[in-house]
Amino acid sequence: MTDTILSSATREVAIGFGRPFVMIGERINPTGRSILAEEMRAGDFSRVQADALAQVEAGAQVLDINAGIPLADEPALLAQAIELVQQLTDVPLSIDSSVVEALEAGIAVYQGKPLINSVTGEDEVLERVLPLVARHGAAVVAISNDETGISEDPDVRFAIAEKIVNRAQDHGIPRSDVVVDPLVMPIGAMGTAGQQVFRLVRRLRGELQVNTTCGASNVSFGLPNRHVVTGTFLAMAMANGLTSAIMNPLHPEVRTAVAAADVLTGQDGNCAAWIRANRAPSEPGSERVGRRGGTRRIRAAG
Amino acid sequence: MTDTILSSATREVAIGFGRPFVMIGERINPTGRSILAEEMRAGDFSRVQADALAQVEAGAQVLDINAGIPLADEPALLAQAIELVQQLTDVPLSIDSSVVEALEAGIAVYQGKPLINSVTGEDEVLERVLPLVARHGAAVVAISNDETGISEDPDVRFAIAEKIVNRAQDHGIPRSDVVVDPLVMPIGAMGTAGQQVFRLVRRLRGELQVNTTCGASNVSFGLPNRHVVTGTFLAMAMANGLTSAIMNPLHPEVRTAVAAADVLTGQDGNCAAWIRANRAPSEPGSERVGRRGGTRRIRAAG
Repeated sequence: MTDTILSSATREVAIGFGRPFVMIGERINPTGRSILAEEMRAGDFSRVQADALAQVEAGAQVLDINAGIPLADEPALLAQAIELVQQLTDVPLSIDSSVVEALEAGIAVYQGKPLINSVTGEDEVLERVLPLVARHGAAVVAISNDETGISEDPDVRFAIAEKIVNRAQDHGIPRSDVVVDPLVMPIGAMGTAGQQVFRLVRRLRGELQVNTTCGASNVSFGLPNRHVVTGTFLAMAMANGLTSAIMNPLHPEVRTAVAAADVLTGQDGNCAAWIRANRAPSEPGSERVGRRGGTRRIRAAG
Repeated sequence: MTDTILSSATREVAIGFGRPFVMIGERINPTGRSILAEEMRAGDFSRVQADALAQVEAGAQVLDINAGIPLADEPALLAQAIELVQQLTDVPLSIDSSVVEALEAGIAVYQGKPLINSVTGEDEVLERVLPLVARHGAAVVAISNDETGISEDPDVRFAIAEKIVNRAQDHGIPRSDVVVDPLVMPIGAMGTAGQQVFRLVRRLRGELQVNTTCGASNVSFGLPNRHVVTGTFLAMAMANGLTSAIMNPLHPEVRTAVAAADVLTGQDGNCAAWIRANRAPSEPGSERVGRRGGTRRIRAAG
């Protein structure tokens, strides 16, 4: 079994085979959210705060934090957002940037063992990010593309994932600390996108013995009723071994599909979380179709 | 590729790998439906008629017909129901009984190539049902249990399925006309029930090259919000190769999960059926979250 352990100052979360699926909340990301971008640039983090609490309340066990705003001081903003969110909740964080200086600034203020999001198969990126991951004993998301772009051939993507895992080992990072993202393309643009991911996830688990994650929302880009497509995709990928996803737990269709899939993979013991979350309306707390109660320990603001 | 072709007098349906999933409507079955049982016993088939039309409208490509009512003349009732439903709609039928005389009576009036539901791995059942299937050139559902009952060991269930496929070949029935039911247990009673089916479906498809079906509703027996569990289960089983199910298409959660899974396996070309079924509310027909329009050709009553 491969367990990827992440932690905050006071709490551990394990991503692993034979464990409940780990939802990594994707909302704290100004990409495509112009209001959030403007607020963060102006030093207003109230929406970051609200998004953090809402996602943990909806069942996110890890939160992704991204501060990629054009012409802003990304390292400073990312560090500020991380400090703030760590005061607000005890879930471990995923530090998300394509700028190495921003990753460094985020790691510098982080308390615990974070997930670094991400490294690709590009040699230059590998040699800048992996030493950072190794030095801080972090875990890392490995995206299966390289200098040549994103291949439509799943075997090429598998080979890139293998290259990253091997290179990580050269840097002293165990395969259990590499979480591979097989890359999810929009199904509306590429009809094979789902089958590619299902096959890749099976091989990544069976042959490379690594945990997996993905940016799930991308699969339903451009489609109507898209949250049902995203939730169904996650359940199907889980049936092939996907162990985590960077996703939006605020959409009930998505988090409920994940909760049902945990029941069906046998990871929700005695269906206890499902039964608790789906109680009849006359019982207290039943209006919330959520996730494991144990993931909802939100600390008061420091 | 293995195609199981079923037909009515005027229409063919293919169950197969690399094809859209086939929903077999389960509703025309008096088991556990005491009002329907009483009506059918009294010769009132109005509910059978309504259930047939509603299921085809909801996207069922095949209808299962069962007339198993205690102390009633099952062969006569089954034949009557089949004749009536064949006048009403042109979808192929699944003739469902554990009584061989009822299967014979149903086949005698059926126009086309039916699905016979079912044969088990019990020698006595095999030797009574398979000659009937062979004589009429029908297809058959093969349930993976035998004299010893239902094994909790998926390898035993696989071996029984293999035995039925081999025995069918001895009777001149090709493997393409044997649709194996791996047997779905309630997940609330057996936490491994989902993983067992996913693994069995993969082996049945990869090693035995047979199509598969299952009684899907059973998986969610006793759970709250059960239709979401059933729909999620079907999507997960489809991600492992399940090609049809005996199910209730009238539950929107179930048929929508199947439609989304068809999108994600790449079987809904250009997502056309999904987009048509999920149009914005201002467009006509959008209130129906249904299935492929092509499956809805309901003929007027003869």
